[in-house]
Amino acid sequence: MTQIQTNHAPAFGVHSEVGKLREVMVCSPGLAHTRLTPTNCDALLFDELPWVQNAKRDHFDFVTKMRDRGVEVVEMHNLLAETLDNPAAKKWLLDQQMVAEEVGLGVVDELRSYLEGLASRQLAEFLIGGLSTVDVAGILKSDLLKLAHEATGITEYLLPPLPNTLYTRDTTCWIYGGVSVNPLYWPVRREETRLTTAIYKFHPRYAGKVKVWWGDPEADHGLATVEGGDVLVIGNGAVLIGMSERTSRQGVTQLAAALFQQGVVNRVIVAAMPKLRAAMHLDTVFTFCDRDLVSLYPEVVDRIHPISLRPANGPTGMEVTVENKPLVDVVADALNLKKLRVVETGGDSYAAERQQWDSGNNYVAVSPGVVFGYDRNTYSNTLLRQQGVEVITIVGAELGRGRGGGHCMTCPIIRDAVEG
Amino acid sequence: MTQIQTNHAPAFGVHSEVGKLREVMVCSPGLAHTRLTPTNCDALLFDELPWVQNAKRDHFDFVTKMRDRGVEVVEMHNLLAETLDNPAAKKWLLDQQMVAEEVGLGVVDELRSYLEGLASRQLAEFLIGGLSTVDVAGILKSDLLKLAHEATGITEYLLPPLPNTLYTRDTTCWIYGGVSVNPLYWPVRREETRLTTAIYKFHPRYAGKVKVWWGDPEADHGLATVEGGDVLVIGNGAVLIGMSERTSRQGVTQLAAALFQQGVVNRVIVAAMPKLRAAMHLDTVFTFCDRDLVSLYPEVVDRIHPISLRPANGPTGMEVTVENKPLVDVVADALNLKKLRVVETGGDSYAAERQQWDSGNNYVAVSPGVVFGYDRNTYSNTLLRQQGVEVITIVGAELGRGRGGGHCMTCPIIRDAVEG
Amino acid sequence: MTQIQTNHAPAFGVHSEVGKLREVMVCSPGLAHTRLTPTNCDALLFDELPWVQNAKRDHFDFVTKMRDRGVEVVEMHNLLAETLDNPAAKKWLLDQQMVAEEVGLGVVDELRSYLEGLASRQLAEFLIGGLSTVDVAGILKSDLLKLAHEATGITEYLLPPLPNTLYTRDTTCWIYGGVSVNPLYWPVRREETRLTTAIYKFHPRYAGKVKVWWGDPEADHGLATVEGGDVLVIGNGAVLIGMSERTSRQGVTQLAAALFQQGVVNRVIVAAMPKLRAAMHLDTVFTFCDRDLVSLYPEVVDRIHPISLRPANGPTGMEVTVENKPLVDVVADALNLKKLRVVETGGDSYAAERQQWDSGNNYVAVSPGVVFGYDRNTYSNTLLRQQGVEVITIVGAELGRGRGGGHCMTCPIIRDAVEG
Amino acid sequence: MTQIQTNHAPAFGVHSEVGKLREVMVCSPGLAHTRLTPTNCDALLFDELPWVQNAKRDHFDFVTKMRDRGVEVVEMHNLLAETLDNPAAKKWLLDQQMVAEEVGLGVVDELRSYLEGLASRQLAEFLIGGLSTVDVAGILKSDLLKLAHEATGITEYLLPPLPNTLYTRDTTCWIYGGVSVNPLYWPVRREETRLTTAIYKFHPRYAGKVKVWWGDPEADHGLATVEGGDVLVIGNGAVLIGMSERTSRQGVTQLAAALFQQGVVNRVIVAAMPKLRAAMHLDTVFTFCDRDLVSLYPEVVDRIHPISLRPANGPTGMEVTVENKPLVDVVADALNLKKLRVVETGGDSYAAERQQWDSGNNYVAVSPGVVFGYDRNTYSNTLLRQQGVEVITIVGAELGRGRGGGHCMTCPIIRDAVEG
Repeated sequence: MTQIQTNHAPAFGVHSEVGKLREVMVCSPGLAHTRLTPTNCDALLFDELPWVQNAKRDHFDFVTKMRDRGVEVVEMHNLLAETLDNPAAKKWLLDQQMVAEEVGLGVVDELRSYLEGLASRQLAEFLIGGLSTVDVAGILKSDLLKLAHEATGITEYLLPPLPNTLYTRDTTCWIYGGVSVNPLYWPVRREETRLTTAIYKFHPRYAGKVKVWWGDPEADHGLATVEGGDVLVIGNGAVLIGMSERTSRQGVTQLAAALFQQGVVNRVIVAAMPKLRAAMHLDTVFTFCDRDLVSLYPEVVDRIHPISLRPANGPTGMEVTVENKPLVDVVADALNLKKLRVVETGGDSYAAERQQWDSGNNYVAVSPGVVFGYDRNTYSNTLLRQQGVEVITIVGAELGRGRGGGHCMTCPIIRDAVEG
Repeated sequence: MTQIQTNHAPAFGVHSEVGKLREVMVCSPGLAHTRLTPTNCDALLFDELPWVQNAKRDHFDFVTKMRDRGVEVVEMHNLLAETLDNPAAKKWLLDQQMVAEEVGLGVVDELRSYLEGLASRQLAEFLIGGLSTVDVAGILKSDLLKLAHEATGITEYLLPPLPNTLYTRDTTCWIYGGVSVNPLYWPVRREETRLTTAIYKFHPRYAGKVKVWWGDPEADHGLATVEGGDVLVIGNGAVLIGMSERTSRQGVTQLAAALFQQGVVNRVIVAAMPKLRAAMHLDTVFTFCDRDLVSLYPEVVDRIHPISLRPANGPTGMEVTVENKPLVDVVADALNLKKLRVVETGGDSYAAERQQWDSGNNYVAVSPGVVFGYDRNTYSNTLLRQQGVEVITIVGAELGRGRGGGHCMTCPIIRDAVEG
Repeated sequence: MTQIQTNHAPAFGVHSEVGKLREVMVCSPGLAHTRLTPTNCDALLFDELPWVQNAKRDHFDFVTKMRDRGVEVVEMHNLLAETLDNPAAKKWLLDQQMVAEEVGLGVVDELRSYLEGLASRQLAEFLIGGLSTVDVAGILKSDLLKLAHEATGITEYLLPPLPNTLYTRDTTCWIYGGVSVNPLYWPVRREETRLTTAIYKFHPRYAGKVKVWWGDPEADHGLATVEGGDVLVIGNGAVLIGMSERTSRQGVTQLAAALFQQGVVNRVIVAAMPKLRAAMHLDTVFTFCDRDLVSLYPEVVDRIHPISLRPANGPTGMEVTVENKPLVDVVADALNLKKLRVVETGGDSYAAERQQWDSGNNYVAVSPGVVFGYDRNTYSNTLLRQQGVEVITIVGAELGRGRGGGHCMTCPIIRDAVEG
Repeated sequence: MTQIQTNHAPAFGVHSEVGKLREVMVCSPGLAHTRLTPTNCDALLFDELPWVQNAKRDHFDFVTKMRDRGVEVVEMHNLLAETLDNPAAKKWLLDQQMVAEEVGLGVVDELRSYLEGLASRQLAEFLIGGLSTVDVAGILKSDLLKLAHEATGITEYLLPPLPNTLYTRDTTCWIYGGVSVNPLYWPVRREETRLTTAIYKFHPRYAGKVKVWWGDPEADHGLATVEGGDVLVIGNGAVLIGMSERTSRQGVTQLAAALFQQGVVNRVIVAAMPKLRAAMHLDTVFTFCDRDLVSLYPEVVDRIHPISLRPANGPTGMEVTVENKPLVDVVADALNLKKLRVVETGGDSYAAERQQWDSGNNYVAVSPGVVFGYDRNTYSNTLLRQQGVEVITIVGAELGRGRGGGHCMTCPIIRDAVEG
């Protein structure tokens, strides 16, 4: 119950999907979610409006239960506020943000001056939660602000609200001893990567200790997009990457090339997915719950085509093998396992489809065979328990409204390999 | 706390929006909602999938709290099962349903025979919850059933699921001493009216005691559609009808003509509404909470054009007055009140829009100044309380996912006039 | 999901602890629990005050989830109201109740006349929920009522509140093909047996079909008390009875004699228990979760002395064997099992003690390996799941405040034997 | 919604009961509560066992809602951990604690050495949550520890668990510009004062800025005990102190003398209370909800005898006036108000008694007319709302099990006077 911790934390890095989770980044629901309305929620990638007070409460409960299992949980608002205490960090962030293309002509100087005067915590709150023209009514003087009052939707913001920070999984993802700093698919999420990068660059906990394999929020990656929800570090020198609506072919290959060049992995398994809202990321249909056990949604996973990339000489630096076995067999092979145990989304066909939608495959492990899942997916949770998995439940009524579960809401920073 | 009830129930009829509520029809969530999936929920008019177990629990809590206030609450599954105990009722319902257009060629006889053999409660469950081909696999023999297995969405059903029965308000609505039997706008809801009609015609509680002003589920009403969520019986011989996406001009005028001809009302106020998903019915933006107090969402209500209809000689039987005052003033005038107190959806512009979406104006009164509302609408609930209204909260996390609140979920059958 | 039921219900009778549960009696929280106060709750055997609205809601959820598993759940308020529709039943109950010893001198005639005038449902509500002098202020005229106003605690009632009806397990318990009508230990609960007896005698569902092995609410059983929470019908012709604070030696032996004489069982295992509030009934420390798996609290169970009774000739009609093996081994032997799997209350010593207190051993099965338990007992629920048991959770925050769980709240009426 | 805060916090001090709350100390549920068992909970002053996970969640929700209203909420585990980073603080605390009378002969040196080696956060956790012999099994070597294994209840601890820290109100209480450091009534709570004192003495936020009027945890105060739940700073230079089971006559008079000598107040109103578990502190039966509005439980408050103390020359330094008016009139007079509005605990006599028990009078204001209260007290919450008070609800199912509500769980450190 009480954890007596040693002082020597292991180095940052994620070496499996189910090994002991030691450090994880989350981001609480907050101001950004109070900005969601029926008018703008689609543009902000939410299907429904969460009740923010209850979402905060349920997220806290999730965090507490992870802490009860010995995980060091760091929270993004806190990290960002502490990062902004460093003037260089504040300057780096505002330099990128305070340009006319982002905040609108005629407002830049006045707004920057206003933001520089804020306390770090308040500034962090606005950087994540957004700053609307209403918030600064009476503070900024520019006539051009009147234009903003007449604009609608998310363009009415001086700083955009970032409700998808809740899903810390996507923005950056650790792959063995370093991290991929991801260019995200949707423009409304791109700002997120900048914030996480600032934390890794300037926060005393991370500055100088983070090795970046690929990605740079100051560069233009074109059509190459990657989201961490598509990246599963399965272990044994392999990584599994979903090629999906959000993680493009261009992104997958660039990331693979970078990993091969730096000797990080010896195999990338690409899971070519059908494009569906319900299956936007690989981790919405396929997650690990134990060393050799996966939860998956067969309606989608059966339609995935696995392709293996391995380092090679030649112009692309890799060789490509189109696999002719199902995904689970390819993954088992990469892990030197005879086979994977599979738990399919539970219940009849209605229930299975309902539960996949409600993040019923989006489990996240804290250690082998111990996972978090939403309470509402009773069928799937029961099936996993019948396989010996401990499923700790969290309330999904509000948190799940952006179509993400425990796996999406966590960015592991330190996770052990699974012992052989 | 304990209610000692008299044996002489008053006659059926609804004489106001806030007078003492004595009898009300509701319909529990159930089998129909387990049929909702991400694929079919749009077609079935749900924005999201409710967790049915919790929805049942929260609905029961709503029912219990109404009973605690002395309301006789009758439930549609129960009423329908008791109705089906009457063979004439069963025949009347199956005669309409068991035709090739509804269930598909080649299945009619076998299916009818199967349904006739079921216990009343089971049959009621299927009539509301739907009957899928999976339910009867191995029971029905027809080769043509194989076709049904390959069909998708709601057409794969032999009996359609009716999840919108949850909103008993719409199907039929009592206007003073009688009822309007409404032709609903969406085809997927039309079956509901047939079921309620069977209850009124055959259930021992209602048979022979229900006066129908207008509407007939056996007739074709063409483009004339009316939904009870648009009909507010405000009292003093007047009725307020929203002309909306779902309640057509044709429907409003036919209903008004029927009411005038039978001398039921002396004035119909038509509220011509903008067409918006968020404002599908008048009662999603405008409800009464006390004799002289309304909750409203100004963004929509300010755009409503009120028009009065009054009985008159001549070919249409009515005269039309385009009002040049705002809706609240027109309603106050119809009630002989100097003015109405108005509580607008609470919070800043984000919160107001969010709460209207979450049924934040969809209050239902059990007596003057005592209403039910969803817990999540904290701003609006607070504003009402500051006006002296008692707001009893119910949990909206699951029930609200079909975009309806307490007003939508109740069909008052006996409600007193407000004492003068 | 939908259960198509046959019309031929099996005969009443309980043939095991974990066989398929087909019919069960429960009693909803209600009026009686609103009578509990800090002053009287000890006398009424509650440790804390439940929030009645939430208790009702959580109980409904329990009932719904049992129904979802195909159990016919009958509710005591409903059964009693239907029973009272029979004038003979009403007379039988009032004859016993309306005597000066129960309601006080000078009130009998007037009160009886008042109660006879009530509708059945209202009378049932008062018989379970109690009737206070406040309820009849202004209705009854007797001067002697003034005395009642000055009395305190539960004696101030004209009819006593019976909050422990929530625990239908105790009052009567089915043992194979018949029932024991139990004289309860605490005087404040004795009224409960009278009500259940009236249901069995007069309700159309049960009248003439219930075989009583032992017990008669019209007789005085002296020190012989039995409560159903101490009686486990383990199968194979055996019954396990806790000899506890509440089930006396006199009660055990009389019940055993009656069972032997009527040839119902061939062995009674007496579990002689230490007397503790935390272990008031055997089922608070020992329940079956699967054919061969029990949940138990070792701190208490290790101190139980098992004794076997078997039918024999001679004056007492039985022979007594003091067992020298632990209880679980004796039970295994009675079931012809090599051994029982045992799941002990989970967590460290604090957690185990806490969970036993919170009904952490009070599981009730709906079929082999599928049980209901309180959500708060996370350690114990996890241990059971690791043994392959499906644990369906119900909310215990309010229901558990009287120290009873799912086993206490259910009186099985039809339960199958466990197949061989 | 977003609070833009200034950098100049006002000085520490509490100038009213309902003025704007700016800074408050709370203490989350945690390790100490997992130590509660049915065996020891009475000794630790809890009536029931809270489910700690849910208690944490509900407490977080309370904290979040206070923050949403602009309150700076500081948490005791955090403050203590930061305090222990100062070696002088650690030494000061361990010097007092690490003596044979507290931890037992033969363990002192080894235990101290162990504790000194812990990280500050871990040490803070043990100082509040307790350290059991089980926690250090295998770490400490002393033979005398074996004795501890055989001891039972709270004496089995090397450091006692302090679950009542949840009620930060009691330990220290701010009275205008300084604080009373209270000697608590029950020995099991006395350790708490030491911890809070360490925070005020050594934490960088408070060190050197806290003026102590009275009390010293290093001194022996004999029978003079005071608990903050009895101390209401009503404003206008007056303070209201309940003389109760827990706040003794000796304590009241010593505190009054200290306040008079230092010119802090000009009047102390003593509320002489009946001794009842349900009314252990004045704030369990009497709290302010608005400038001129109190919530009270008449059954107890009607039996309070008010006595005024005012500074005077002479040996005791005060004059004593036995008031012959009811408490509410005496308080109104002290505030120069014509009268106080009174909201009595709601519902009939059962409900009122139930709700007072469930902390139904234990409201805490964040500003005039805006209070926090438990959700379960629906009657009282409604009555307050009808008086125009905004009642923000928090979940009481677990938090309330120690018999304290929002008022008990908060120690205001900065609160404005009520503007005149």
